Amino acid sequence: MRADARRNRDRVMSIARALFEQHGPSVEMDEIARQAGVGVGTIYRQFPTKEALMQAVLASHIERVTIAARELAAAPDAGKAFFDLLARIASEFLVKGSLHLAMARAGLTVPEPTEERAEFERALGALLVRAQKAGAVRRGVTAPEVIMLARGALFPSDAHDIPTAMRRRMFEIVCNGLRTRPRR
Amino acid sequence: MRADARRNRDRVMSIARALFEQHGPSVEMDEIARQAGVGVGTIYRQFPTKEALMQAVLASHIERVTIAARELAAAPDAGKAFFDLLARIASEFLVKGSLHLAMARAGLTVPEPTEERAEFERALGALLVRAQKAGAVRRGVTAPEVIMLARGALFPSDAHDIPTAMRRRMFEIVCNGLRTRPRR
Repeated sequence: MRADARRNRDRVMSIARALFEQHGPSVEMDEIARQAGVGVGTIYRQFPTKEALMQAVLASHIERVTIAARELAAAPDAGKAFFDLLARIASEFLVKGSLHLAMARAGLTVPEPTEERAEFERALGALLVRAQKAGAVRRGVTAPEVIMLARGALFPSDAHDIPTAMRRRMFEIVCNGLRTRPRR
Repeated sequence: MRADARRNRDRVMSIARALFEQHGPSVEMDEIARQAGVGVGTIYRQFPTKEALMQAVLASHIERVTIAARELAAAPDAGKAFFDLLARIASEFLVKGSLHLAMARAGLTVPEPTEERAEFERALGALLVRAQKAGAVRRGVTAPEVIMLARGALFPSDAHDIPTAMRRRMFEIVCNGLRTRPRR
């Protein structure tokens, strides 16, 4: 992709993410194009449908966490790095989850971004193992388990309308449960 | 219900629970009657369909936990009582969950036993508050949150085929996260 095409794509994604976050899946492609300062044709060349754009936005939340994990991979305090990543996971996934839910309510489904998810799991796993070796995280727990626990705390099944504060409180309990030296 | 009718019902339920646990929803009513030592007509008088019997079995798992909670309500160590109840919840719910899953796979659905669930939540809440007052469980957490976390750890959405040991490990992390004085 050429540099200016990539810049346009990044702008579109960033505007789309913000608009979807604020207004849900009803946002028009025209409005995204207008705010991103590009023609709507430019968007459609990269994202043939709004669903494709939404799918890219959902995947981008995972990618951002993966990037954060890689940035934290060499941090001096391995325990702090892992729990900083978990905090980032909560923030990104809460936004991603509410878009996902709004899409489901609008009858839209997108496939799970399998590749991005595998990358994310690998990056998380590296930080997890480092934090376990440093004695900050309980041994025996694996990256897929951390992800399942995080999802379960943030998005309990059969409870779609609970407040964000409750989701965060449950997530905090999971984080606490992973620590070998819990904070009161 | 007369005493002998209740005794028959209890026997049928106990045999049905064991057979469903071992063989899933394919167990025949005839076989349950045979092992319970009653005529199949006796079962059908109380449970007009196999689904009705299964629903009663699912509800009985919740009732058993509620009874356990009430028995633990006056135990001297409020923290231990709460975590003993959580251990019991894990065991009953793992059995209940696998029957539930087998039923879903067989295309059977039963409504959630709302009343039993509300009773259970109240009984759990009483133990939770007592354990929080004793300083053994983190403050701010509510009974519905404990239940959502327990379900999320035991039955992560989109992960139906994970081993029981993994479910138990995730449950243990949740338990640990609820403690103010975690065990290593």
